[in-house]
Amino acid sequence: MNNPIGIISMQFARPFRREHLGLFARMKELGFDLVELLVPEPEEGLDASDVRKALDDAGLTIALAARVSLTRSISDGDPAIRLAGSDYLKYCIDLAHAVGAISVGGPLYGAPMVFAGRAPAPVTDAEMKAREQRVIEALSKLSLLANGAGCLLALEPLNRYETDVISTVSQAMRVISAVDHPSLGLLFDTFHANIEERSIPDAIRLAGNKLVYFQGNENHRGFPGTGNMNWPEIMKALRDINYQGPITLEPFRRDDDRIGLPIAQWRPPHEDESQKLIASIDLVRACAHMAEFQR
Amino acid sequence: MNNPIGIISMQFARPFRREHLGLFARMKELGFDLVELLVPEPEEGLDASDVRKALDDAGLTIALAARVSLTRSISDGDPAIRLAGSDYLKYCIDLAHAVGAISVGGPLYGAPMVFAGRAPAPVTDAEMKAREQRVIEALSKLSLLANGAGCLLALEPLNRYETDVISTVSQAMRVISAVDHPSLGLLFDTFHANIEERSIPDAIRLAGNKLVYFQGNENHRGFPGTGNMNWPEIMKALRDINYQGPITLEPFRRDDDRIGLPIAQWRPPHEDESQKLIASIDLVRACAHMAEFQR
Repeated sequence: MNNPIGIISMQFARPFRREHLGLFARMKELGFDLVELLVPEPEEGLDASDVRKALDDAGLTIALAARVSLTRSISDGDPAIRLAGSDYLKYCIDLAHAVGAISVGGPLYGAPMVFAGRAPAPVTDAEMKAREQRVIEALSKLSLLANGAGCLLALEPLNRYETDVISTVSQAMRVISAVDHPSLGLLFDTFHANIEERSIPDAIRLAGNKLVYFQGNENHRGFPGTGNMNWPEIMKALRDINYQGPITLEPFRRDDDRIGLPIAQWRPPHEDESQKLIASIDLVRACAHMAEFQR
Repeated sequence: MNNPIGIISMQFARPFRREHLGLFARMKELGFDLVELLVPEPEEGLDASDVRKALDDAGLTIALAARVSLTRSISDGDPAIRLAGSDYLKYCIDLAHAVGAISVGGPLYGAPMVFAGRAPAPVTDAEMKAREQRVIEALSKLSLLANGAGCLLALEPLNRYETDVISTVSQAMRVISAVDHPSLGLLFDTFHANIEERSIPDAIRLAGNKLVYFQGNENHRGFPGTGNMNWPEIMKALRDINYQGPITLEPFRRDDDRIGLPIAQWRPPHEDESQKLIASIDLVRACAHMAEFQR
């Protein structure tokens, strides 16, 4: 297995502005092949041609992470919010085309929960069914656009606290099957799967050839190898389905040496994490390589 | 290991009213030794002497699960909310005495997050420190009361989405050490630990003789044995620290055969779960027994 290894842009900076483009060379130097860039808001003023040039200079490929909200959400009952959701994803697809990104991934269905200040609350069966239909309808159209733009859409299940739309691979596969377009696939994040799936390897095998993007995160979202994830088993499952896409890391740093930790919030880097990142890449690559011999 | 095996009351009914007291006999019949009762609100009209009689009739012991809120919270900066938090926990301790409960457990520090509609947001260092001091001060007084009432207080870390006060055993141990009273100990829930701890067995060993209550839940909160928890390793860690307290199950049922699952909400039973509960008890007991021979 020789999957490209990626790193989320906010590992280094958030928001990611023009002055951060030099970090691409740093990522490459650490051993990464790909950067997963949080889609910049238009007002953040990141120019697509600047991004593309910086990527070329660094020899890095790119994938995009879409940022949905309660006001741009293709699953919403309000047609204006739904339209804003579609328009936003079109903007992401256009940007993907402009920077040469392989995919636009994330909770594309919208309706974020805890980080948007929305607490879990019961939803009627009728509304659940309606959301599903709205998501299928919007993604059917967007898949055609993505195809034209030469990128994939990667639908990501999130854990029960972050969404009440799609939390498991099984649910995501229902939408992906209904849309049934080669430009729509699955994004698998082990952090979320560790909360929702009965078995991470089984869930990977369920995704099968629909898996187009993989985020390898620890159970506690720290650096791979510092938690309870069974990386050899995970890589064997990826090998089982002949997955050749990116394996991206998002080792959000934590701060729990004191009471009242803000584990759930993104924090800027507070130390040089180079050695931890290099060790993480080494671990993922070693397990991926070893998976070839464990059949 | 011959730990009492418990079941949360809401597995059968919520709210748990007088007409549900007959369920105690059903719990005993299934093989449970203990019921973990959600502390009833005064207006729910559950009489302590009725509870005690039903427990005696069924031959069941009891522990209480406290229900904090944003308006009764010993960590809050508002003295009125803090007082309401202390008063509520005093009510819980009085109830524990009246029904003969061994402990009052839960996120006693208050300030619930996602289920109270509060999204994660940064907290200043000063406020984090102040929260810690308020929790230590309140629990120091409440520990004396608990001692007089013959029950324990069991402090429960919750995952990053449900609290930003105490999410790890390490953090809880700081408060428990500062209070330093034999009536205050730790409540360990494997579901939360699976999201926050680097190693569940290591976290159990860190708690050591301060562990007074244990909730054995799957990674996805379903029935033990249906997820990715390593039950033999967990029971070996409990054996390492000579834990003799309850092992309680809270296998919240889920409903993810469709899109838009409300995984995060409690749902009433929709089928006879007797066989799943019996199998869960058997699994926990078998792993606990086997732990005696794996040294």
